[in-house]
Amino acid sequence: MTRISELKNCIWQQALISRQDREELNGHRSCIVWFTGLSGAGKSTLARGVEAALHLRGIRTFVLDGDNVRHGLCSDLGFDDKSRTENIRRVGEVAKLMMESGAVVLAAFISPFAGDRNLVRDLVEPGDFFEIYCKASLAECEARDVKGLYKKARRGEIKNYTGIDSPYEIPENAELILDTENENIEESIARAIGLLDDAGLFDRDR
Amino acid sequence: MTRISELKNCIWQQALISRQDREELNGHRSCIVWFTGLSGAGKSTLARGVEAALHLRGIRTFVLDGDNVRHGLCSDLGFDDKSRTENIRRVGEVAKLMMESGAVVLAAFISPFAGDRNLVRDLVEPGDFFEIYCKASLAECEARDVKGLYKKARRGEIKNYTGIDSPYEIPENAELILDTENENIEESIARAIGLLDDAGLFDRDR
Repeated sequence: MTRISELKNCIWQQALISRQDREELNGHRSCIVWFTGLSGAGKSTLARGVEAALHLRGIRTFVLDGDNVRHGLCSDLGFDDKSRTENIRRVGEVAKLMMESGAVVLAAFISPFAGDRNLVRDLVEPGDFFEIYCKASLAECEARDVKGLYKKARRGEIKNYTGIDSPYEIPENAELILDTENENIEESIARAIGLLDDAGLFDRDR
Repeated sequence: MTRISELKNCIWQQALISRQDREELNGHRSCIVWFTGLSGAGKSTLARGVEAALHLRGIRTFVLDGDNVRHGLCSDLGFDDKSRTENIRRVGEVAKLMMESGAVVLAAFISPFAGDRNLVRDLVEPGDFFEIYCKASLAECEARDVKGLYKKARRGEIKNYTGIDSPYEIPENAELILDTENENIEESIARAIGLLDDAGLFDRDR
């Protein structure tokens, strides 16, 4: 009978599987790709498009966005400034865990505050975080109004709506800017993947 | 120039990569394996041992435990009953997301309240959640006292310590009980993996 207390230095205690072990199993590096921009700028669409293209190349991916976070992990949070910050803080921590699990994490959040985005950037090492600014004018996003939320915000039925009565701080140090108002989506997806390819994330012989 | 608003039904919108797609890429199913038990019962050691054994078989794994959650995602929470419940709620949501990403998630948490454990179980489909009770008597765990926390709790320097002044509710519907007081660790690890093998998680020809 072996007791765990006697096994403190045994193989199982030391057999920690690391991020690098998982990356080797997967055949590619992991990272966080952070899509930020106004509601309607195309963040989720781009994240899912990039995911589909990477998946076809055999790369492990996961999209984190409002749909799978606001209903679950952050269902207790509202949309005031403090709640937005806590929302992004939690998402950042989850993105970090998923990156450690070996995935290319595609996070799509308005994330209007530069301080919150930089908090996530600082959670991980340089080279692990790619900020992609999905650039589209408020006029364009409001014209698209896919979810009808800009109309509600203009009528005052929604408070603290980014671009209307809550600010969006334009990224100053984004790794990539996708001008979704003037590029077509296939072009934007290709540019996002080019960013990751250029960073050597998917080199087999690294 | 193609506008996203014109592309609502385009291939990229529909190209959602599902959990099943990821499982097919990985060559195995994903799930949540939940290790519960007193502090010192061997939860983390077992989770890491099972992870190591599965990783060697080419299975995508990730361990969620206090070490990587209490310092990050749940760094704002204490150890009173309400905080413990919120801790497990968030961990459950993260475990679910990681399962959807295709990983076999090995979660190691005291998780003393049956209601909290069942909340996580109910987050996912039947067959996705395996509760493993790491069974060891309080006397044994206290004798091990790997972290020296039982001594502190006995001296009243730590409050709400499970087993001392906070209850542990023994699982009534665990998929597996590992008697870590009387089994050796290799045996426990083999039994945990046997549970997952028997459930067909790693069948290549499903």
